[in-house]
Amino acid sequence: MNISNTICAPATSVGAGAVSIIRVSGPDALAVADKVVAFRHGSCAAAQGYTLKYGTVEGVDDVLVSVFRAPHSYTGEDSVEISCHASPFIVERLMQLLTEAGAVPAEPGEFTRRAFANGKMDLAQAEAVADLIASSNEASHHVAMHQLRGGISTELQQLRSQLIDITSLMELELDFSEEEVEFVDRNQLISLLDSVLSHIRKLTDSFRLGNAIRRGVPVAIVGATNTGKSTLLNALLGEDRAIVSPVAGTTRDTVEEVFNIDGTAFRLIDTAGIRQTSDEIESIGIDRTFEKMMLADSVIAVFDVNSPVESLCSEFRDILSRVNLKSQQLIIVLNKADLLEGFEEARPSFASGKLSEVENASNRATLAVNKIVTELNKIVSLTDNKVDIVILSAKSGLNLERLSQALSSHQKARIANAGTATLVTNARHFNALNAASRALTLARSGIASHTPTDLVSQDIREALYYLGTITGEVSTEEVLGNIFKKFCIGK
Amino acid sequence: MNISNTICAPATSVGAGAVSIIRVSGPDALAVADKVVAFRHGSCAAAQGYTLKYGTVEGVDDVLVSVFRAPHSYTGEDSVEISCHASPFIVERLMQLLTEAGAVPAEPGEFTRRAFANGKMDLAQAEAVADLIASSNEASHHVAMHQLRGGISTELQQLRSQLIDITSLMELELDFSEEEVEFVDRNQLISLLDSVLSHIRKLTDSFRLGNAIRRGVPVAIVGATNTGKSTLLNALLGEDRAIVSPVAGTTRDTVEEVFNIDGTAFRLIDTAGIRQTSDEIESIGIDRTFEKMMLADSVIAVFDVNSPVESLCSEFRDILSRVNLKSQQLIIVLNKADLLEGFEEARPSFASGKLSEVENASNRATLAVNKIVTELNKIVSLTDNKVDIVILSAKSGLNLERLSQALSSHQKARIANAGTATLVTNARHFNALNAASRALTLARSGIASHTPTDLVSQDIREALYYLGTITGEVSTEEVLGNIFKKFCIGK
Repeated sequence: MNISNTICAPATSVGAGAVSIIRVSGPDALAVADKVVAFRHGSCAAAQGYTLKYGTVEGVDDVLVSVFRAPHSYTGEDSVEISCHASPFIVERLMQLLTEAGAVPAEPGEFTRRAFANGKMDLAQAEAVADLIASSNEASHHVAMHQLRGGISTELQQLRSQLIDITSLMELELDFSEEEVEFVDRNQLISLLDSVLSHIRKLTDSFRLGNAIRRGVPVAIVGATNTGKSTLLNALLGEDRAIVSPVAGTTRDTVEEVFNIDGTAFRLIDTAGIRQTSDEIESIGIDRTFEKMMLADSVIAVFDVNSPVESLCSEFRDILSRVNLKSQQLIIVLNKADLLEGFEEARPSFASGKLSEVENASNRATLAVNKIVTELNKIVSLTDNKVDIVILSAKSGLNLERLSQALSSHQKARIANAGTATLVTNARHFNALNAASRALTLARSGIASHTPTDLVSQDIREALYYLGTITGEVSTEEVLGNIFKKFCIGK
Repeated sequence: MNISNTICAPATSVGAGAVSIIRVSGPDALAVADKVVAFRHGSCAAAQGYTLKYGTVEGVDDVLVSVFRAPHSYTGEDSVEISCHASPFIVERLMQLLTEAGAVPAEPGEFTRRAFANGKMDLAQAEAVADLIASSNEASHHVAMHQLRGGISTELQQLRSQLIDITSLMELELDFSEEEVEFVDRNQLISLLDSVLSHIRKLTDSFRLGNAIRRGVPVAIVGATNTGKSTLLNALLGEDRAIVSPVAGTTRDTVEEVFNIDGTAFRLIDTAGIRQTSDEIESIGIDRTFEKMMLADSVIAVFDVNSPVESLCSEFRDILSRVNLKSQQLIIVLNKADLLEGFEEARPSFASGKLSEVENASNRATLAVNKIVTELNKIVSLTDNKVDIVILSAKSGLNLERLSQALSSHQKARIANAGTATLVTNARHFNALNAASRALTLARSGIASHTPTDLVSQDIREALYYLGTITGEVSTEEVLGNIFKKFCIGK
């Protein structure tokens, strides 16, 4: 990438709006603006940073120009932002005039890439810019902001300096290697490495949550046919469907069914087709579906509350055998409550959520549900905080909100548990941390088995390299190209 | 409308983009910004106009705030523009914080309405802002800019001051009415009114062109069935289709087929169904179609060049009887040239456009076309500059560009003829000018028939009123409401 030239690009989307912004950045930014815009007073070249100038682009528009002077700009270079009327025609003409005046159209993400190149932000922060723009709910916005403010970068800086201390000690030994002394206690080195490794593990462990927050918490809806999964799905998607803005270049996945509950995005995992079967071939297909289910953070198991208790229990056992209650939330939905005899009478008690208490023992619906709950309780403790049970009618809307709350409060608790700790949200960071961890594990066993110091040192340097790729202290053209090509033009 | 409060609204569209802008305007704009944004240095209240401030909105984003002080802002009020990352979530949160801090969400067009209310622009200029944003080609952009720069306003000012001079003279007479003297020569008054009336007529006459430029030049494609109209239509729309941006609130019409040729927008009029028929009922339908054809500025009459000359001439006579060559351009398209025997040989001569010269008399295709041209020439002079003839093959693409050029150069000539004169582009202005013209015509005949001066004066005041509605010197809440509700929010 050539960063000696001056680039320009629209920074706002074309569409409804009053104002469009065109960004210009580079050594000639002010001169280019002066060529294109006739200012009422003075010139950009003579203007102070952080001031606005009013001017006319002959035959095109009246514009407002914001002037930024290096290094006090987004890119760290001289920059202007030209604000014009939001017409595609005007934006096109201005871009044409700017390029005629010597600017070149910017590549996707080139403004942010220059900010990185000029030390205004590190690579993890640059990636957070794209995440911030793409985030459509409070939780993902929050982690993107944390990363943009240097959250992960600070932690990595600590890890790197600890590792550099270790290598320094070891390399000091190398200088005196002929004397065959061990300056540093091996046990001390191992315990230092263990501390770094445990820190890295904490970060990699956070990826499941971090990724769930950024991309939406993966949710699987499973259950036998005819339990009302589709109706439930539509009811969930109905009004809470997330604003999925088609932001070019920042969309990492094909658009899935995403819905927001109370500031958290949930993403449905396609698990169509789970049902009881004796057909062997079909069983393989169903195993695949259960594999997908394992990717979910929350599993909603849907049952028809009107089914015989035995078949219901058998379906439940089957699902339970596939769920990992250590890492997955399980929500049992007893659907089609509206078809129970005595439903209307039991409704208030169902709505209150008190299922195991015999509140209205004379009511058939309550009794039926109590019986099911008791049987399910024999299979797994329903008071385990990882299992929720909701009596529901997707059709009549009863307790849909309870289901949403169960999903939402579980995720809120996960986020609260994570506290202010840094969450890894980016697969690139996750992979780099794993690679660093592998190298350090090698180094650790090398030290334990008294491998020559220079070989162990090599492993630690490798770990340092991987950690460095996250913030971009080490980077290749290819890595940078891959990261920034996902950005929009104008970013 | 209450203009004592402070309003806020996003001024950029949500979607792909790096930056979003939120506008705040009103007496508390600077104080509201200070409540929402923690600035690194100082406050908005203490900042000079035309400066930028960097700050943080806790938990939401880092923002850049442009400060404008009354009256040096778009609205003429204290204003700020907050520039943040282009995320729908961030924009929503900022809007929430701004309203919590005392601003109210702006109505559509309210910023421009305040600019009008504060004398920053007149009503015609305010309307030009919406036109400017909606214009998608050079021609419509040009007329919107002219109007925004006060083009029509200046002319109306002249007309109004002429009329005010006339009424002053007449009202002076009223003061001395008991003396029954005529201070002013009646003929002089009539000639003054005639001059104003002729000026108004020039403006109303310009509406056909002005409206064509703003909304796209209306074009009708007519011809018998099976002449290849649809293929031609698709070929025309193919690559030159206009960028029709769905700008909410500025789109005045349902989206029609619009295509750009060389900076001018053309708009297809639906004239499906013109064909020869002996059925009386169907004839009525066809008459309707011909009525629509009369709305076109350019009519493309498509013929199959392989048809018998007699039927082709009869179709042509029929179409010609419905076209008004004084105000409409007629383009004869001889289509399906590729099916003529000897086409490939004649191709270069067809491409050169020389149809009436016997260049290659031995070629059957050329001879056939020559014969048709000669016969058509007997019906109407094809050298008339209002009739173009193009031999074409929509299928193979031959001479499609010639057709585009014929459309484009005719419109360019119309625009060139109009010169720098003001074009009326707005139906509201057109109607007001017509109403003024009617009132002045009444006044004129009143003077001629020695109607009492006070009655004549009344008519002239009515004309003044209508002229005043255009620039908004007189306006009602209802008229203003109608104009600004078509604007976007944030404009």
